[in-house]
Amino acid sequence: MSTPLNIALLGAGRIGQVHARTIAYRVASARLAAVADVNTAAAEACAAQYRIPKASADPLQLINDPGIDAVLICTTTDTHANFIEAAARAGKHIFCEKPVAMTLAEIDRALAAVDKAGVQLQIGFNRRFDANFARARQAVVSGEIGKPAMLHIISRDPAPPPLAYVKISGGLFIDMAIHDFDIARFLSGSEVDEVYAHADVTVDPAIGEAGDIDTAVTLLRFKNGVIGTIDNCRRASYGYDQRVEVFGSAGAIQTGNVHPNVATLSDGASVRQDLPLNFFMQRYTEAYASEIEQFVAAINAKQPVPVNGQDGRAAFVIALAAQRSVAERRPVRISEIQ
Amino acid sequence: MSTPLNIALLGAGRIGQVHARTIAYRVASARLAAVADVNTAAAEACAAQYRIPKASADPLQLINDPGIDAVLICTTTDTHANFIEAAARAGKHIFCEKPVAMTLAEIDRALAAVDKAGVQLQIGFNRRFDANFARARQAVVSGEIGKPAMLHIISRDPAPPPLAYVKISGGLFIDMAIHDFDIARFLSGSEVDEVYAHADVTVDPAIGEAGDIDTAVTLLRFKNGVIGTIDNCRRASYGYDQRVEVFGSAGAIQTGNVHPNVATLSDGASVRQDLPLNFFMQRYTEAYASEIEQFVAAINAKQPVPVNGQDGRAAFVIALAAQRSVAERRPVRISEIQ
Amino acid sequence: MSTPLNIALLGAGRIGQVHARTIAYRVASARLAAVADVNTAAAEACAAQYRIPKASADPLQLINDPGIDAVLICTTTDTHANFIEAAARAGKHIFCEKPVAMTLAEIDRALAAVDKAGVQLQIGFNRRFDANFARARQAVVSGEIGKPAMLHIISRDPAPPPLAYVKISGGLFIDMAIHDFDIARFLSGSEVDEVYAHADVTVDPAIGEAGDIDTAVTLLRFKNGVIGTIDNCRRASYGYDQRVEVFGSAGAIQTGNVHPNVATLSDGASVRQDLPLNFFMQRYTEAYASEIEQFVAAINAKQPVPVNGQDGRAAFVIALAAQRSVAERRPVRISEIQ
Amino acid sequence: MSTPLNIALLGAGRIGQVHARTIAYRVASARLAAVADVNTAAAEACAAQYRIPKASADPLQLINDPGIDAVLICTTTDTHANFIEAAARAGKHIFCEKPVAMTLAEIDRALAAVDKAGVQLQIGFNRRFDANFARARQAVVSGEIGKPAMLHIISRDPAPPPLAYVKISGGLFIDMAIHDFDIARFLSGSEVDEVYAHADVTVDPAIGEAGDIDTAVTLLRFKNGVIGTIDNCRRASYGYDQRVEVFGSAGAIQTGNVHPNVATLSDGASVRQDLPLNFFMQRYTEAYASEIEQFVAAINAKQPVPVNGQDGRAAFVIALAAQRSVAERRPVRISEIQ
Repeated sequence: MSTPLNIALLGAGRIGQVHARTIAYRVASARLAAVADVNTAAAEACAAQYRIPKASADPLQLINDPGIDAVLICTTTDTHANFIEAAARAGKHIFCEKPVAMTLAEIDRALAAVDKAGVQLQIGFNRRFDANFARARQAVVSGEIGKPAMLHIISRDPAPPPLAYVKISGGLFIDMAIHDFDIARFLSGSEVDEVYAHADVTVDPAIGEAGDIDTAVTLLRFKNGVIGTIDNCRRASYGYDQRVEVFGSAGAIQTGNVHPNVATLSDGASVRQDLPLNFFMQRYTEAYASEIEQFVAAINAKQPVPVNGQDGRAAFVIALAAQRSVAERRPVRISEIQ
Repeated sequence: MSTPLNIALLGAGRIGQVHARTIAYRVASARLAAVADVNTAAAEACAAQYRIPKASADPLQLINDPGIDAVLICTTTDTHANFIEAAARAGKHIFCEKPVAMTLAEIDRALAAVDKAGVQLQIGFNRRFDANFARARQAVVSGEIGKPAMLHIISRDPAPPPLAYVKISGGLFIDMAIHDFDIARFLSGSEVDEVYAHADVTVDPAIGEAGDIDTAVTLLRFKNGVIGTIDNCRRASYGYDQRVEVFGSAGAIQTGNVHPNVATLSDGASVRQDLPLNFFMQRYTEAYASEIEQFVAAINAKQPVPVNGQDGRAAFVIALAAQRSVAERRPVRISEIQ
Repeated sequence: MSTPLNIALLGAGRIGQVHARTIAYRVASARLAAVADVNTAAAEACAAQYRIPKASADPLQLINDPGIDAVLICTTTDTHANFIEAAARAGKHIFCEKPVAMTLAEIDRALAAVDKAGVQLQIGFNRRFDANFARARQAVVSGEIGKPAMLHIISRDPAPPPLAYVKISGGLFIDMAIHDFDIARFLSGSEVDEVYAHADVTVDPAIGEAGDIDTAVTLLRFKNGVIGTIDNCRRASYGYDQRVEVFGSAGAIQTGNVHPNVATLSDGASVRQDLPLNFFMQRYTEAYASEIEQFVAAINAKQPVPVNGQDGRAAFVIALAAQRSVAERRPVRISEIQ
Repeated sequence: MSTPLNIALLGAGRIGQVHARTIAYRVASARLAAVADVNTAAAEACAAQYRIPKASADPLQLINDPGIDAVLICTTTDTHANFIEAAARAGKHIFCEKPVAMTLAEIDRALAAVDKAGVQLQIGFNRRFDANFARARQAVVSGEIGKPAMLHIISRDPAPPPLAYVKISGGLFIDMAIHDFDIARFLSGSEVDEVYAHADVTVDPAIGEAGDIDTAVTLLRFKNGVIGTIDNCRRASYGYDQRVEVFGSAGAIQTGNVHPNVATLSDGASVRQDLPLNFFMQRYTEAYASEIEQFVAAINAKQPVPVNGQDGRAAFVIALAAQRSVAERRPVRISEIQ
């Protein structure tokens, strides 16, 4: 086995720790050489738990450390673009959580830096690596369902995030639906041409007062003719609702929710199952691990990463178009978004 | 038991025979007193099979027969409005297959005649009487799923009708999706405010050459805030696909397709079920019978019929709005349709 | 069409009425010419409802009526054998509800009379005509699951019958499990060689005091090597539980319960379905109709009926073996039962 | 956190590596201090992969190492009893794979040594820790299904083991069904009183020639009145079939197989799912990890382990009774087995 890829983890919060765990325990061809967090205690705790040799309060120090081959950017969204640029300049490969940034200008600047440096950038669209979404994609690619004509995505959280987070999140389309925009591109195999969205506040008036919406339905028209719809809500009483259906000329594929067990209980009242896995940390455990494994594998093999910066940009642009559609109450062409 | 309701069947085609069978065998409180069809042989064969005392080539003769209490209009769509008007003038209660007519003007004239005569008119939106759609409605009405916020309807036929029929059908929205527009109103408990639709020809170019589309996705915004989407296609390789999902503040209900059996077969290739019931005559057998039972029960009890002329009109108006949306590539308000 | 088969219905109780309805409404090639019931009012009510020309208090009168081609014996079990014998002597074809009789001697006498007369006798093992059991049988016959090796039958009622009925029922094995013994033969395609059963009273002590059991598990060894198990209980809290599973060298088939709808409701507590159809009158509506249709079709076509007297005898013998197994606490060979 | 438990792994084969991985990556309160395997290369490779400080060719050396607190016995079955005795004498806590030994005498000697030493012994009945079997157990314990009356276990492998293994395996009942006997005790909450089994060779005649059977159905009568049946086969064409159903006075619970995804694909042929997870290494990944986590937790907390030596013995005795039942073609009481 060749030398493992030396990775620096930037950001030791919840998702950073998920990735640390993956590299520590599942990826023999990489090692965590360092972790940085502006919260020094968090960096040190993470280093201790995953036996990472170096903890730092300064992500830039690690980015510029010549012993580092690649960085995982798990810091707050407002820092993503700068760290991407810095890492690209330092010649490091990059894995960055979604969204790439909060404005298209920043994203374009970051992607330009990546292009110029010739490094690779993978975006954290973890759902592509989930066994169910991957199976749906396989049904499209393999021809099992023929030529796709329609898709329908259901994506509902069990509960809205804290209001403080809602305020800096960029809004439902950029923060939450961006995953679904990516999955829509992934499953349709095409770029979106037009977006029309209806949005509302049905879960919590405070979300509306904070300037966001918590419920949305988005209609997408793709360049290859596929028509897609996405149902989003910040709160489903029964938990995390993550399903997709693709209909094609020769068949259809439909994915369900994942439950903690496959037991059915019958009594005098009903025939029932326990509720689905409650949220993304339970539902996408394997998908989070798999995206990192594939990132490392691609870098080591000098192959393209499976989800790149253009994928991150494209989903962001759809989110902007959806925002504008709601604001202006009209269909918005993707070509209108600069 | 009081005297049974004397019913004349107008039109002895496929759906007319379905209703004849229901009255003959399941509805003790009604009897088929006569059947008319311009095809005399069809009228006579139907009379023979269901022991109907009188067969006629002239629907108007039966409409004006003083021994008749109610008529079932199962003739071609172009004749519906005139027969409704004639029956109303003759003081007969009316069950009429959908759509009420091919133009809003005709519908309005027919409904005005019904109103003026004080008779009842039920429209043949049979799906409301299907156990699955009825259960979804019950979940909404009972509060089991809280306040509805979104609904999604999937309605796909196993195969397109003959091209000759396509040409006179009024098009996918009026001929096929009208059922779904009715179900959308039924499940949302509200009127539609705005319609936006994308449509395409993906099944058969000849349908496009005939001026119709065979694939459509319609986005509905309801006055009560519910947002709905409808997926229509003239051909699903796996058969009749008739499902609905309603999401509300306290839960969701999802209905499935109906299969000829509930057996699961596992072998070296897959774990599988037989295909769903192939088309409406199999899937909606009970629903067709139930709508007639409830029509007769309502008339006999002098209660309002469960689906009336305004329901027929409202669904037709949505279909017109969808047509205009596709033609003009923009969202269309219901208030624009006169 | 040739002259319809003239049928006399003997017994106008619940199941008699089910069959009357089938012949009246679904079987054009037969007509109910007469009905008899020792309860004259019941006979007359049935005649009125299904437009049967003749009502009688005396089954034997109808059996011997030269205008009758076939009889449906739906009287109490203690009368079955005598009516079969009388009908056979009168040259009438016979449909008889299960069980054929309460003793093997009576059954043998009845079957001998049938043989001697050369008439046909069909036994009311309705489940063979249910879409699910029929599909399981088809999987065996078609080779879809290869050579069958094991089968498991679950057969539970929603509630025990009245105690008065329990006392004259012949016991759980003869009254209830006899259907399952027939299905076991039907699905295995073989005769039983050995029976071992455990039985208990878990539902109602009064059933035990009446000398019966309400819960039983029966292990069957078939001559072709198939091994089968049957779970019976007089009470399942969730309703009528009627399932089967056959495992073979190339696959397995598993049938489920039938529910009033295929809706799934999700809320904060569970993801659930409504309870299965509650009992045999709901679950086997179509099967009851189908067995009569096939009886009439076989008689009219001079073909063998699909379930004959030997089938009725064989299931009864298995029931006797199960009774003896429980009484003597040992496996019992079918060859021991005379 | 206190000092982690120092564990020696005995046996670096497939299942040994599974446990090594669990301790290395998931159990912070334990560490693998050493690994032994008579195959030195295997021990060393395992040590390298999981960063175990010491590799040895001699299990006894590690058992007697004062730095070791507990051993995991993953060696071949013929060595289990001796290693248990040695570890008990050395005062080490023990986790041992099933079966405990190949004879009851050896098991009793090993358990006596454990008792005398006052150490703890956990047996590797991993299925108790599977989310599905655990949920079924919870339904029994919580009272959700009332008092259990019947249980049915389906346990089929995707393919038989190599013939060489079959010959030393102890036979289907001891090697394979022993897991099901344990689950039957776990779910019934009672001891078995009587066993009756039918067995056959339907998969591969060579298995019969080797003196074993590959297909069996076992009927169990428990002391608390529960009646259970177990279907075993060495080969299911559709993969690993691991299901259970418990029926009680107030309801029933039924567990299904676990599939690699929850996608449903519909096309012109069927509505289908991909095959279940193929075998135990995929299906029980989490269960294997969980049993070790709970072993370590129990030892560290000085609490009883969740599955002890008596559980191992009891399942083995049922296997012996099943063997005798097949050999003597009669029901065998557990009390007959010494």
